[in-house]
Amino acid sequence: MIEDIQNYMTAVGEKARRASRAMGRAETRQKNQALLAMADKIESSRDWIKAENARDLDAGREQDLSSAMLDRLALTDARIDAMAEGLRQIATLADPVGQVSDLSYRPSGIQVGKMRVPLGVIGIIYESRPNVTVDAAGLCLKSGNACILRGGSESIHSNQALAACIREGLEQAGLPQAAVQVIETTDRSAVGALLKMDQYVDVIVPRGGKGLIERIIAESRIPVIKHLDGICHVYIDDRADLQKALDIAFNAKTQRFGVCNAMETLLVAEGIAPQVLPRLADRFQEAGVELRGCDKTRAMIPCKPATEEDWATEYLAPILSIRVVSGLDEAMDHIYRYSSSHTDAIVTEDYTRARRFLREVDSSSVMVNASTRFADGFEYGLGAEIGISTDKLHARGPVGLEGLTTQKFIVLGEGQIRTG
Amino acid sequence: MIEDIQNYMTAVGEKARRASRAMGRAETRQKNQALLAMADKIESSRDWIKAENARDLDAGREQDLSSAMLDRLALTDARIDAMAEGLRQIATLADPVGQVSDLSYRPSGIQVGKMRVPLGVIGIIYESRPNVTVDAAGLCLKSGNACILRGGSESIHSNQALAACIREGLEQAGLPQAAVQVIETTDRSAVGALLKMDQYVDVIVPRGGKGLIERIIAESRIPVIKHLDGICHVYIDDRADLQKALDIAFNAKTQRFGVCNAMETLLVAEGIAPQVLPRLADRFQEAGVELRGCDKTRAMIPCKPATEEDWATEYLAPILSIRVVSGLDEAMDHIYRYSSSHTDAIVTEDYTRARRFLREVDSSSVMVNASTRFADGFEYGLGAEIGISTDKLHARGPVGLEGLTTQKFIVLGEGQIRTG
Repeated sequence: MIEDIQNYMTAVGEKARRASRAMGRAETRQKNQALLAMADKIESSRDWIKAENARDLDAGREQDLSSAMLDRLALTDARIDAMAEGLRQIATLADPVGQVSDLSYRPSGIQVGKMRVPLGVIGIIYESRPNVTVDAAGLCLKSGNACILRGGSESIHSNQALAACIREGLEQAGLPQAAVQVIETTDRSAVGALLKMDQYVDVIVPRGGKGLIERIIAESRIPVIKHLDGICHVYIDDRADLQKALDIAFNAKTQRFGVCNAMETLLVAEGIAPQVLPRLADRFQEAGVELRGCDKTRAMIPCKPATEEDWATEYLAPILSIRVVSGLDEAMDHIYRYSSSHTDAIVTEDYTRARRFLREVDSSSVMVNASTRFADGFEYGLGAEIGISTDKLHARGPVGLEGLTTQKFIVLGEGQIRTG
Repeated sequence: MIEDIQNYMTAVGEKARRASRAMGRAETRQKNQALLAMADKIESSRDWIKAENARDLDAGREQDLSSAMLDRLALTDARIDAMAEGLRQIATLADPVGQVSDLSYRPSGIQVGKMRVPLGVIGIIYESRPNVTVDAAGLCLKSGNACILRGGSESIHSNQALAACIREGLEQAGLPQAAVQVIETTDRSAVGALLKMDQYVDVIVPRGGKGLIERIIAESRIPVIKHLDGICHVYIDDRADLQKALDIAFNAKTQRFGVCNAMETLLVAEGIAPQVLPRLADRFQEAGVELRGCDKTRAMIPCKPATEEDWATEYLAPILSIRVVSGLDEAMDHIYRYSSSHTDAIVTEDYTRARRFLREVDSSSVMVNASTRFADGFEYGLGAEIGISTDKLHARGPVGLEGLTTQKFIVLGEGQIRTG
């Protein structure tokens, strides 16, 4: 039992800050060695991890957690395999730390470039899935950061078991165990303390529902890499290829429902709507998707009326709002007004309209002729992602290893002094 | 007289947000045309600008402003020329907006890349120098942003005159006048209102003294690109070239005293200190620099004792603290503890030590064999700078046009949908 949360968290912060210095200069080989050792340890501790996880599941059942929450909490063999495999994949990724770019000579004779360096200490606050403990630790480690992880209270035993495996891996590679600290108390004041430790923590990454994220933004004194809504649009232009339009719209909505890069609103140019909407309506009906349309939509297909609120809602569910627009400008106006700036796509064969959409739509991912479901760190080749940022500063869109680093200027001279 | 500050600021914010959309899609040619028209208008309005500036100077004298403040406030012919010239130079810089990088094919067949885009609306809060109005407007305009400028109350008439010239330039180029708005009231509550308008303003850039910046950080709900202290170090290694070491240390301290990239603490390896310190002490004495040293320093040259406070002080004055260290590790430990992470330099001919210093010192600029005075947007080839950031997120070090932009992902497909 930890009695004084503030003292405990201060000690965690100090240890993390110290560890971050060692992590910043750790060699790639050493970091990869730690990742592989962590993966091995997780696999060889499989029975113990499942036993600890069972304690969380039992407690969860007693507390009447929903079956969806219990499912997210459960560590099956497949999930344990996936965690270990994820660490091994992170070990194969290129080390971003120390990458130098744009190094060039200036008229003064100095060379100026940028070197990629870790952020320092990253605080991650997340909800029930224990695999986040391992993913986040792996990504922070590879990017040369120390991290402080605070999982949900319902997964405390699972997280502590995983933390022990992680520490073992760090130790085997000769890295400080404090490079990954998983908060050992379920006391909620620990989160409040973490969010105020701006002398120790450089950035906070929340992973969880909108409620969690809004609380963290309101309370944090530390910059937050956050992701709020994913109200994603697909606009089918009247110069779209019909088959591509149908496939993309259907895929963007139905490939998975509860994800932030699923389409929530379909915009269709009125010139092509009579061809698109009836066909799509049939496919959506088969897939069990409820349609809510504007008046023009409802004149073409049977569906409920969409209200003002629909345009501003992230359903995360088999519901789709549909609006018929006059063309590109009205579509972009709608997106400007209602998009959460996550991911928006146009389907068109028109070169100039595609070019305008790419330039003018201000979202973290802007797509031409592709499903919004591609907005994802793996699909983008980042190798892994710690989240998707809808912020504009620092990291925008899927955040991989690079998003956990920053750049400093380096200057190489041979005795230059400034005279002017 | 503006009666309701909150309503006034809300209107300013709304207009800026609307203007930012037009600015984001403005063509390079059009933005350059505006910059050149602004420069011409400033030159042709020279007499009027000076007359408006005289009103500020008269009021300043009545309020007993210091002569240093009055000097900063004064718009001489040379300063008016420099403002116009600055705008013309910004017109020659490459347009960062729309630059696409890293566009490559993924296994799914989509192409993924990043496009540089404006931040949106930038709020700039600054003190007495009216030339900041023109510099900041020019940089925000070229980078496709709208901006809201809030200068010091002592320069209100000068700033409004410059604002009129800027609006004229925008209008001539067919760009919205609201792309650059200079707050028309000296009421201090306007700043408070600006810092709360996170629905309209994407980033705040304060330019001024530490007091101003700390107040803004404490109050702002909007991310701040800030620069606090510049406690810069030069470490002279025992494998330094003696002449380079003497020249760099002298230049870093004395080329200008009141600037953030001036050296405030000199670290000298004990192996070379007996050769370095007496020679430097002579040069610094000639230049009127007061020296404060550790015990070992004081055993070699006459100087006052340095206190713990000295190591943590940005003098911005002809004062230098000096510490003799055992070598690279002790120097980096000192820098880790006391540096403000602005700019730190090593002087050495040793390859491995230079390599370690570059990697391990975590400052916005890290230099080998060059004067810290080079930490500057012009010297780095950024063309211009809006400030120097000591933050880690987003922009770090000198902030030029690129620091006023962000990147979004773009995805180009030919009908791809996601299956896995």
